[in-house]
Order: sequence, then C-alpha cells, then structure tokens
Amino acid sequence: MIQLLNERDIEFLLYEFLNTEELLKRTKYAEHSKEVFDASIQTAKKIAEKYFANHNAKGDQQEPTFDGKTVQMIPEVKVAWDAFAEAGFLAAHYDFEDGGMQLPDIILRVAMAYITAANVASSGYSFLTIGAGNLIDSFGTDAQKDRYLSRMKTGEFAGTMALTEPAQGSALADITTKAVPQNDGTYRIFGQKIYISGGDQSLTNNIVHMVLARIEGAPLGTKGISLFICPKVLVNEDGSLGERNDVALAGLLHKMGYRNTTSTVLSFGEAEGAEAYLLGEPHKGLSYMFQMMNEARIGVGMGASVLGYQGYLYSLDYAKGRPQGRLPSQRDPKTKQVNIIEHADVKRMLLAQKVYSEGSLALCLYASSLHEDTRTAADDDERKRAAQVLDLLTPIIKSYPSKYGLKANELAIQVLGGSGYIREYPVEQYYRDNRLNPIHEGTEGIQAQDLLGRKVVQAQGAAYREWALLVVADIENANPAIAELAKPLGEALDKLNKVTQGLAMKLLPETELALANASEYLDMFGRVVMAWIWFRKANIAVNACTPQNLHEDEANFYLGKLQAARFFFDWELPQIHTQAALLLSMSAVTSEMRAEWF
Amino acid sequence: MIQLLNERDIEFLLYEFLNTEELLKRTKYAEHSKEVFDASIQTAKKIAEKYFANHNAKGDQQEPTFDGKTVQMIPEVKVAWDAFAEAGFLAAHYDFEDGGMQLPDIILRVAMAYITAANVASSGYSFLTIGAGNLIDSFGTDAQKDRYLSRMKTGEFAGTMALTEPAQGSALADITTKAVPQNDGTYRIFGQKIYISGGDQSLTNNIVHMVLARIEGAPLGTKGISLFICPKVLVNEDGSLGERNDVALAGLLHKMGYRNTTSTVLSFGEAEGAEAYLLGEPHKGLSYMFQMMNEARIGVGMGASVLGYQGYLYSLDYAKGRPQGRLPSQRDPKTKQVNIIEHADVKRMLLAQKVYSEGSLALCLYASSLHEDTRTAADDDERKRAAQVLDLLTPIIKSYPSKYGLKANELAIQVLGGSGYIREYPVEQYYRDNRLNPIHEGTEGIQAQDLLGRKVVQAQGAAYREWALLVVADIENANPAIAELAKPLGEALDKLNKVTQGLAMKLLPETELALANASEYLDMFGRVVMAWIWFRKANIAVNACTPQNLHEDEANFYLGKLQAARFFFDWELPQIHTQAALLLSMSAVTSEMRAEWF
Repeated sequence: MIQLLNERDIEFLLYEFLNTEELLKRTKYAEHSKEVFDASIQTAKKIAEKYFANHNAKGDQQEPTFDGKTVQMIPEVKVAWDAFAEAGFLAAHYDFEDGGMQLPDIILRVAMAYITAANVASSGYSFLTIGAGNLIDSFGTDAQKDRYLSRMKTGEFAGTMALTEPAQGSALADITTKAVPQNDGTYRIFGQKIYISGGDQSLTNNIVHMVLARIEGAPLGTKGISLFICPKVLVNEDGSLGERNDVALAGLLHKMGYRNTTSTVLSFGEAEGAEAYLLGEPHKGLSYMFQMMNEARIGVGMGASVLGYQGYLYSLDYAKGRPQGRLPSQRDPKTKQVNIIEHADVKRMLLAQKVYSEGSLALCLYASSLHEDTRTAADDDERKRAAQVLDLLTPIIKSYPSKYGLKANELAIQVLGGSGYIREYPVEQYYRDNRLNPIHEGTEGIQAQDLLGRKVVQAQGAAYREWALLVVADIENANPAIAELAKPLGEALDKLNKVTQGLAMKLLPETELALANASEYLDMFGRVVMAWIWFRKANIAVNACTPQNLHEDEANFYLGKLQAARFFFDWELPQIHTQAALLLSMSAVTSEMRAEWF
Repeated sequence: MIQLLNERDIEFLLYEFLNTEELLKRTKYAEHSKEVFDASIQTAKKIAEKYFANHNAKGDQQEPTFDGKTVQMIPEVKVAWDAFAEAGFLAAHYDFEDGGMQLPDIILRVAMAYITAANVASSGYSFLTIGAGNLIDSFGTDAQKDRYLSRMKTGEFAGTMALTEPAQGSALADITTKAVPQNDGTYRIFGQKIYISGGDQSLTNNIVHMVLARIEGAPLGTKGISLFICPKVLVNEDGSLGERNDVALAGLLHKMGYRNTTSTVLSFGEAEGAEAYLLGEPHKGLSYMFQMMNEARIGVGMGASVLGYQGYLYSLDYAKGRPQGRLPSQRDPKTKQVNIIEHADVKRMLLAQKVYSEGSLALCLYASSLHEDTRTAADDDERKRAAQVLDLLTPIIKSYPSKYGLKANELAIQVLGGSGYIREYPVEQYYRDNRLNPIHEGTEGIQAQDLLGRKVVQAQGAAYREWALLVVADIENANPAIAELAKPLGEALDKLNKVTQGLAMKLLPETELALANASEYLDMFGRVVMAWIWFRKANIAVNACTPQNLHEDEANFYLGKLQAARFFFDWELPQIHTQAALLLSMSAVTSEMRAEWF
C-alpha cells in the first residue's frame, strides 16, 4: 500500500514546529487532550487508507460521466463520503453544542491531509462542503443554518462555490448572473457558471450552491455582487425535499487530472429562474465570499503540498530499492550496481522534493495555526496580529505549494525515469492532479497582484512589518550552531525589505510598471518565507540533536531536517538576489512587449 | 484548425539564422534550388495538416491496445504513415542513386517538424525507422541494406531501437540480453527489452529491431555489447516474408502522453531464440548505437521544441482573443475589458514560451546544419570542427528543449487558465506528451554527466574552445546597436569558462564531488548557449530593421525577436551567476546527504 504522509513528520509539525499542545490551555479546548487530537487524526488516517486510497487510480481511469440526466460515478466515492461524514469530520471544528467535535482547525486540517494524500479528487467534495457551510455559519440566519448547514454537517447535503462565469473567468467584477427579487423575499437567479467543482454528483440528494450574482439594478463592479444560497433541490418548510430547483447541469468538463471531482457547467434559470436566498446583506457578497476563497486558497496550498509529499515518499521508496549504475569513481562492471539513491543527482531530486513538500506542508499548517489564533488566541492583540500575518501570507500559502508541489511531482517522475511516465505507477497522476493547483482559486498571476498590489502595502505595510519582526526574532533567538543559515536569512530579509519598499513607492506613480513583474516578486517572497520555515525547522533540529543519547532513528530524522535546510539555503534561496536585481531594475521588457510583435 | 509552426519563422531560421541556401553550392545539392527545398517542406506541411493533425487528440483518447495477439490502433495512423512514406520522406536524405531525394538533413528535419507539430505520437514511427535505417546504412553489409534498409526507405518495414532492459534501465553497461552464435553465422537472441517505442504496431508487415545484446562469452561492461538486426518476421532469400521470428510482444505500457506511439515490452527468445544478424563487428555495438542515439537525442530536442512551439502558438492565439479584466491603472467596471494579452504577466508567459520554443527550435536546426557540415562541408577542418561542436552540444540540444519546452507547455496551460486544464483544449496534451522528453534517450542527469564528465573535457577541452570561439566571434562582429546584449553575453561566457575550468580540474582528484552538481552545470551551460542563440537572432533583427522602409509585418517580426532577446537577457540569463556560485563552491550538500536521513 502507498504510504500516506509521514507520521513522525506530522508529529514534528504539530508539536515541535507548532505549539499545538498549547491550544489545550484555551478554554475552548480545555476538555480535550493530546490523545484526543491524535486519535482524531488516526481515525481520519484509517478512513483515508480504507475508503479513499482504494479508488484513487480507479477514479482517475473512470471519471464521472453525464448522460444528459444524471451523473454517474464509481460507487467507491459515495462509500468514502459517507465514511468521512459518519466519523463526524464535516462538523469536526464546530462546538459541541452545534453538533461538532470542537476540534481545533489544525487537527481537522491534518485529518483532511490524510484524506487528500489518499485521494485528492474524492476529498474535494468534503472541502467544498465544509467551506460552503462555514459561509452559512458566518453570515446566514438561524433559519438558513437550520435548513442547510445542519444537513451539510452530517453529509446529507453537499456544498459548492459558484463564482466563475464562461465569459468572465477570473474577472469577478464583471460577472453578469442576475438575481431578480420576488415578493416573498426570495430571488430568482439567471445565468451560467463554469468550472463549478462538485456542481453535480451522485453522492448526496441535495447540493447547496453558494452563488455570486448581481441583484437587478445593482452597481457595476465588485460592489454590486451579492451572495445567494441556491439549492439543487428545494427544501420544504418541514425539511423534506421538494421540487427540483431551476439549476441544470449543462455539462461536465474533462480535466487532465483531479478527474474524480466533477467540474461542471451549471445553468441557473433556464425556465422560471432558480430560487435562491440572499446570504447576509445585499452587495456584500464578494467580501463574504472572500472568507470561503481564503479558506479555499489555504486548502489549495494544502492539497498541493500533500500531492508533492506523496510523490516524494513514493520516489524515495523507489530510489531506495532500485539498483542501477555505479558511482562515477567506480566504473568496473564486475562490481555490484548501487541503488539509485546513492547517485548525487537523485539525492538532489529527493532533497528538492523534501524541501518543497515538507516545507509547504509546514507553511500550510502554520496558516491553520494563525487561523486558530484569529479566533481563540487569549488577547485581542494576538488575534489581530495573527489575522494580519495570515492575510499577508495567504497569496504565498496558496501559490508556493502549488508551484513547487508540482515541481516536486515533476521530479518524482524523473526519479522513476521511464516508470514515472507510465500509468502503471502513481506519480504521473499526482503530477496531473497537481497541475490544477496553480490555476484554481486565483491563478499565480492573481496571487501576485494581490500580494504586491494590496497585501504588502495596505495599512502602510503594517502586516509586512509584523511578519518581518517574526523572522528577525527567530534569527535572534536561534541556536548559534546554525549561524551559517542565520546570516543568509538575514540578508534575504534585508533584500526583500529593499525590494518591497522600492516597488511600494512606485505603485502609485507607475502602477503598471510596478506590478508588471509581480509574479517574480511573489516567487521571491515565497522563497524567503520558505527559507524562514526551514530555518525554524533547522533550529529545532539542532536543539533536539544536542543531547547525545538520541535514538538513531530520531537523530536521522533531525539530521535530515538540517541537511534539507542546508539544501534550501544552497540551492533555492540564493536565486532571490537575481530576482531582486530584476525587480529593482523595474525591467519593462514584458510590459513594453506588444501584441503585434509576437 | 490549429496552426502548425510559423512559416515566417521557419524561413528566418533556414535562410537568415542559418545559411541553408549556401548548401546549394555544395556538389551534392547542386541540382537543387531554394524552390525545391521549400516545395519539399510545403509537401510535408500539407501531409501534416491532412493526415497527422486530424487524429492527434483521437490517438490520445484511443490509445493502442493489445489483445494478446495483435496491436489495435486507430486506422488514421496507418493512413498517415503511408502518406508520409509515399511522399518519399523516409528516404528523403538518401542520394538519388540510393532511391532518395538527396535533400539536406535540415530540410528533412523541418519537414519532420511539421509532422511532429501536427502529431508527435504518430510521427514517432517515422523517426525510429529513419534512425534505424541510418544505422544499417552506416554499418550494414550490402546484403543487409538490400534486405532491410531498402524496404524501410519505402515504409514497407519499420524500425526500432531496442536497448533498455527491465532490470538495467539507463545502465546499458549492465545489459544481459544474450546472443548465441549459430553455425550459419547468424545469432539467436534471448532476453527482454522494455520501453521499446514502436516495438509492435499495426502499420507494417515487418519491424526491424536494432538490438543491443552480449555475444556469449563477451566481456562485461560496455565493451562487450554488440548490435544486431532482429526482424519481427524473417525475410526469405527471395525477399518474401517467412516465418514469425521468436520476438513476442509481452505487453504495452500505458503512458501519460505520447500515447499513440506504442511503448512495448519485448521478449526475445521465449522458445528457440530470436534469429538475428550481427551489424558491423562484434563488441562495437554500443559505439554504433551512439550514432542512432545521438540522432535520437537531437530528435528529442526537436520534438520538445516543436511541442513547446505549438503550445506557444495556441496560447498566443487564445490570449489575443480572450477579453478579461482591466489594466491595474484602470479599474472602472464601466470600461471595456482588455484582451488578456494586454496584461504584463500574460506577456511574460508568452515571452517565456517564445524564447524557450523559438530558441530551442533554432538550436536544433543549428544542430542539423552542423550534422550536414560533418558530411558535406568543403574542407576537412570545417567538417572536424562541426563534428566537435555538435558532439559537445548534443547533451544541451537534447536537454534544454526538453526542460524548457515542457516549461513552455506549463505556461501555455497557465495562459488559458481553467481552459488550459481541460481536455477540450489541446495544450494539456502537449504538456503530457512533452513530459516524456526529459526522460527518454538519456535522462537529464545522464546528459549532465555526459556533458561535464566527458564532452567538455575530452581532447583537453578542444571542442569547448571551438564553440567558445564561435561565441566570441559573434560578439565581436555584432551590430553595435546590441551592445546592451553583447556585454552580458561576454560576461556569461567568461563565467562559464571559469566554472568549466574549475570543475574540470576537480574531475580527477574529486570525481564524485565535481560531478555531484552536474545537472546545474548542464542548465547553466544551456542558458549561455541559448543566450548566444538569441544574441545571433537579435543581431539579424537589428540589421534587418536598419532600412526604414520595412513592411510593417516584417518590422513587427524583427522587433519581436529583439524584444524576446531582451527578455532572455533580463529574465533567464542572469541566473547563471547564482548557478556559477553554487558550482564554484563545490557544494557537497547533495552528495553528503544520506539515505537514512530522508
């Protein structure tokens, strides 16, 4: 069976890299214990192994089909969905009194990581349902919660987010889906949405679509968008399912990977209009939806990290057991071949995968811990700081794992060579699955604009300074044994400060030019963040290695972290200086290129 | 219909970037004219459009199957094969007296590029047949040529290269397939080969396998390998087809892309042994096979370039016609949306694709011109120099386009966004097809070892110096208008010289360490070569732009080349300085990593 994640590393992330145990001191989690946290994760792992891993390849080979009436899916997906729901994970983060397990977000995220590791496509339905439910929880009325959310928590209903339209793509400001007010306070929706994941399926009797639409007469642009609950099947007063709503599946899209998550085109209001209910206030829909989008962005980073991680583990295992060739200093054909893990270039490809995937997973769990702090940290200041840093880093949490998780999967294929390219091995599917992540929930280009054009400059750069202080503090408090890493990290932060200030000053006078190379800024910032992550890990590793009586496996674990950190600082971080030079030069090569010159 | 390559650019490459017209002065091509060259290419283009483009997607969706007896393929592949063969392209580069069209290699390669652009998978059978035929032409007896080659030229027989074995992978030194001499001078072959492209198919009645095997009692290692002709069906004295040889298709492999080229496991000698005929002398098989491998490596570079090129053209066309969003300085939702090609980040992604794909295609056609010079250049010195430079650059010609053609396809998907990820659009297939290229015909790691461990150091670096002199001469003779590019190119060459010398001196005393980071050296060298390619293009462009009365389309074409060169020098070249620092530091981070630390 394919190994799902690395338990020792998860433990390291939860209890050494992050202070998850400290959460037990917060009132909300006082009734829990580390044992409860770990048992919850183990439950998810078992469900992942038993109900999700079994059909990861099958779901890719036999993707959902649509005969014009219903969506056909392999039956394993519903079995998995039911098992996940029955174990309570769709409501795990809700309070006891709301039918939940009152678990911290990070425990839920680690649980979900195991599910994703087993089968990213089948896990999609759960992510969407949890996210849509959270929206109703945040902005819905009690009646809406009672009618929809309560049944999304049990898995009776699923949820989606319906934003994108065929003509508008990423440009939400221009969406045209129309909501017509009715006398009874409901709305009728007319329009088409595309790339709606889970927009139809054969798992649940009902699907609760969270739809962005424009109320008739609303202003143009983002300030005229409202958010609606629009169920696939209407729900009667008594809770029974009523008529089919006027929401039609216009077709399924056929993806390169992630095939077992349906991707749909939905038509709202082909007849009398799809009945829908306003969530929160009119015209505030986009700001509400950002809650789900931000959650989804972290979720995308998480999924990308985990796919990268799975490819890493598989190719590592392969490299340890595949003899081929000899070292350059030993060419005698009479000598035994070495396992390919002995070749320096294979070690490079494994180390790169290790830093990308373990580093990305650490970043995403750190994001989850920040999210927790925004809600349950002891004092207001701490909550505010956590919110600022999370808001700042969200574009990086979404895009770094997406870019480098994919890169990791590319390397996993390369380690396997010819075997990596054929469907008889799992790594090519990870690669196809992961190619979605730099695209959905805001492309890399959009994340870059968000980071440079908004996040680093808002509130006079307060969030950026908050984050930079964390890095500086970590450098100052680090074990002197990693001074070799502290120095380049400090220099990298200085360089990032300089570039950030330089670009920020140009944003108003020369907006186009300052933002032209934003994608390079995003990548540079991501590298510095990842260097910080690995610096923190190296510091823990050095401290842990100080007693000389460590068990050999433990010593190896920490030495691996240390060597991975060194790899990152030798191979990945130095490129930021080249990037900084490009950014500071305000190169206009891209912006001055003309369509007719191509 | 999808545009195949760019005719204006092909003309530029043949007649401005390279001096293809000069070939007409060589005796061999004296009877030809530019019109003949162009007409041959046009013929191939028409065949590509009519017979190959029609089933590129279909061949991906309906890959070949094997029912235990025969291989089933969609019928379009044979129609395409026949059309290509009937037009004479399988023999185009042979002399008139040998039944060919006596065309220069570069014309054949451009003709093939159109076929590849239309359908890389269906083109595979032709590439392999031409390469296998060339081997027989170089090393075979007249009888072997008569019996096999003559019928490969007409398309009656196809050819393969059968090197890799399941247990050995890339380590050819360790192959175990056995050849047992018979009293009649023939051999019987026993063993299994894997990843044999075109190893079985439904196109031809016979397949001529070029098989590496070890004659019983031969020395271990590379010096005990011989090359054999081993047909699928035995050929009688009178040329009629005889019995089925003892070569069995053990199974088809199922690839991520390139699906319509069968990838096979072949069993030789499950019964009495597969009858085979020694090609050339015993124990020299690997050196012979290097002819085909080198040809195949350039072919891989070409295929990767062309796939990159197709993705570029498609995403360019998409970007020109897809309105979405507004520029950062114009957020008013009442204004019209711009086509996405106006966004700087989309221009970046298109420019990157342009430099990768147009640059790679130029590099591969340059390789073809060098190959031509090794055979038909006027004087011996010129032939020798061409051979040296081609030999040196082959690892780069294979690997740069493979790495960056794939990267280009990744960007093509990104330009299309969600559309790029679904099979309703062609770019995801290009990406899947192209992922093979960094693997087959020697992985990137193997190319890196070949470049640093052999090519740059052999004959005391003579080939490297030959190539460096070409760069220096181009810098010296360049139009002063591109001094902005001449300076960084000169600095890049100096840096590469320094790194090369530094590593070469360490090769003997510290072999493992000197070769540990060879992949980074390969990438660095590739970037410098590509900078040189773009410098040469920029120089032509600047010279062509000097008269002020250029037609607007022409001016745009050259301005595009110039801007692309600037992009390469701003965005791609500067990274070599970071790479050089890593290489000169002799970082041991990868080589010192231990298996148990992962």
